Amino acid sequence: MPFMEEALEEARAAGSRGEVPVGAVLVHNNKILARAGNRTLQHNDPSGHAEMLVIREACSKLQSQRLPECDLYVTLEPCTMCAAVISFARIRRLYFAAEDNKGGAVQNGVRFFTQPTCHHSPDWYSGLSEQAAADLLTEFFKSRR
Amino acid sequence: MPFMEEALEEARAAGSRGEVPVGAVLVHNNKILARAGNRTLQHNDPSGHAEMLVIREACSKLQSQRLPECDLYVTLEPCTMCAAVISFARIRRLYFAAEDNKGGAVQNGVRFFTQPTCHHSPDWYSGLSEQAAADLLTEFFKSRR
Repeated sequence: MPFMEEALEEARAAGSRGEVPVGAVLVHNNKILARAGNRTLQHNDPSGHAEMLVIREACSKLQSQRLPECDLYVTLEPCTMCAAVISFARIRRLYFAAEDNKGGAVQNGVRFFTQPTCHHSPDWYSGLSEQAAADLLTEFFKSRR
Repeated sequence: MPFMEEALEEARAAGSRGEVPVGAVLVHNNKILARAGNRTLQHNDPSGHAEMLVIREACSKLQSQRLPECDLYVTLEPCTMCAAVISFARIRRLYFAAEDNKGGAVQNGVRFFTQPTCHHSPDWYSGLSEQAAADLLTEFFKSRR
């Protein structure tokens, strides 16, 4: 399955737990090293976003706080917190599906990777499986209104 | 001991472990609920900043991902990642000592709390024990050159 499809699987699983349906996979040497969906509610952790969870797990597995040969696939444009930790971890490439004009920080908001206080920027690509990822979020928020 | 002094103790302890000497305490009902210094190296975790660690610990203790009655004392201006998690956690007041014009995100860099994509801003105050906190960092980086 393409990596973004795997991230979408994680997003669906997060939604079914009542979490905002965002998922991510962290890829190293063309294999998935870590996979996660949002767990902010379940973990009582405001930092428990999918991207944060896969980065922490991958760092733990590789025993390093930097992941310069790793690529991250995530179903939603990373927020300000996650854009910063992606930079700190020296992620090589970032692929995200839907954009987030309310909370995103890559092509929206603070556009962190273009800032002088950003000391590493991944190559980043948006729009893979964009519709599927956006539909998941739209359905989720509609069902909770 | 004043809370910023407690944060400085954590910063010194971090420096003695070889970590960047930044410390934080999280205060609830005038008591310290969580205290930490940086642990990025020890935990192999690029998100292991003092602020992030105390917020995670306090959320875990209070079984909530929001800390609207908590105040955070930290020896250095929070970075972009930490400013965002401070906002997500709905921290009430933020006090920081030294400013960080290279990586800070409150009165430097992305000035996150003033951004339209920031949905909660703490009241924040800078400059308490500024010199002591800045000296710790200057000595640390000088000793490593």
